[in-house]
Amino acid sequence: MNDTAPQQQQPHPQPQPQKKILIVTAHPDPRSLTNSLAAFATEHLRAAGHEVQVSDLYAMKWKATVDADDFPDEPGDGRLHVMSASERATLAGRLSADVAAEQEKVRWADAVILQFPLWWFSMPAILKGWVDRVFTAGFGYGPALPPPYSESALGGRRALVSVTAGARETSFSDRGIHGRLADVLHPVQHGLFWFTGMTPLEPFTVYNANDLPAEGFETAKREYARRLEGLFTDTPVPFRTLTGGDYDHDMRLLPSVENPGTTGFDLHVRPHD
Amino acid sequence: MNDTAPQQQQPHPQPQPQKKILIVTAHPDPRSLTNSLAAFATEHLRAAGHEVQVSDLYAMKWKATVDADDFPDEPGDGRLHVMSASERATLAGRLSADVAAEQEKVRWADAVILQFPLWWFSMPAILKGWVDRVFTAGFGYGPALPPPYSESALGGRRALVSVTAGARETSFSDRGIHGRLADVLHPVQHGLFWFTGMTPLEPFTVYNANDLPAEGFETAKREYARRLEGLFTDTPVPFRTLTGGDYDHDMRLLPSVENPGTTGFDLHVRPHD
Repeated sequence: MNDTAPQQQQPHPQPQPQKKILIVTAHPDPRSLTNSLAAFATEHLRAAGHEVQVSDLYAMKWKATVDADDFPDEPGDGRLHVMSASERATLAGRLSADVAAEQEKVRWADAVILQFPLWWFSMPAILKGWVDRVFTAGFGYGPALPPPYSESALGGRRALVSVTAGARETSFSDRGIHGRLADVLHPVQHGLFWFTGMTPLEPFTVYNANDLPAEGFETAKREYARRLEGLFTDTPVPFRTLTGGDYDHDMRLLPSVENPGTTGFDLHVRPHD
Repeated sequence: MNDTAPQQQQPHPQPQPQKKILIVTAHPDPRSLTNSLAAFATEHLRAAGHEVQVSDLYAMKWKATVDADDFPDEPGDGRLHVMSASERATLAGRLSADVAAEQEKVRWADAVILQFPLWWFSMPAILKGWVDRVFTAGFGYGPALPPPYSESALGGRRALVSVTAGARETSFSDRGIHGRLADVLHPVQHGLFWFTGMTPLEPFTVYNANDLPAEGFETAKREYARRLEGLFTDTPVPFRTLTGGDYDHDMRLLPSVENPGTTGFDLHVRPHD
């Protein structure tokens, strides 16, 4: 190649179709790593032409606890069958305003990003309370929705966990003492995202997060940027579907559909060809 | 055998040593299945001569969210490094009174029972907030405690998850679509109990809990009674220990210590002989 040749003109980058993204972030310190990553994601996605809404749960003073106040039409006699009350209120459009507003954001979004520190190997309570309160019966799941769950009302949305963990990466590796991070997050990846019809991506993780040096934060932002750029194009986790013919009527995986030796949560991921 | 022989006299039952048990329960309805099971456990354990304390989180209006109010000595400038603040407050005896009182109950207990409905494949937010706020650095884990975690300050305590799930049992079976229940609960069983040095038992579960008929509740109580009677004698989940020589310095399981074909969370359970 003749290095004195004029630079070949780059083609104009293909404009990405504009998408709508909801970022939910959950840390009490506005300048924490969690909220810094949420701010970085917001800027990065907006710079790419996308629309972003942010639910900063601590800033919103989000109420974490499901109780009778969520369902103003319930009799208020102390009795509360949560799933029934939740479905009645959802179908009647009589949920409390804070819950209804978050449901509207999820409906609006083409992708949902949950940004949180791993506390006790799961979400902080304030974020668990966002999940508990927002994904009501009749919204994220339930008899009023057409089965199967995996093609439910929230189908078509991509979903990304972006998590910071104090532990080192090896401790969450395949033989790591805490288990593989994707398995630890299974209640979110499969339990929440897959169950409500969303399409989960592999989690994005920053390890050693309790004392991350400045260059670690720069590296984390570069890696996060790549994941954000692939939000709508990266291959998602290929969980099996209820309609795919892999499960029996008792919701058990049929015999011999997995590769030999597959066990545990891996059973529910489609094997590579 | 001569069936006219007089019945052999039963020896007096060995009196069980009195133990102290903390039951933490988390459902907004006092007459829910969750709180009915908590009440049953309380009565059953007391009838056996044990001491029981109950933390009914909804009745206590437990604050679910970790924030600066938990650490009255922090500067209050909006900055909050949760782990550092938590450890400083714990070591200085300057935690908020509600957290300190729950820590005292855990220290007092020989066994801890967590009674909750499975919401989104994990604890209700109010209970996650009990975990987040009570198990501070310096109490359940952290540099001020002698390593390894598994022989930490909370060692010697047994720990039982007693959970109600709306789904059918097959969906949480070995090939069930949601994964094995013990794997779904791994963040509690290994992440919380094992990590803080407690000794987890297999979870006790009531399935089909959204609409349990009366006879189902009677069956559940009989099965729960057996588990409560075995609280201090049943074989616990034999998680490997950090001191057992099974892990390298990066907290990864050493090669070939498991039975061939073992994968996932099962790697961290000692194989049967």
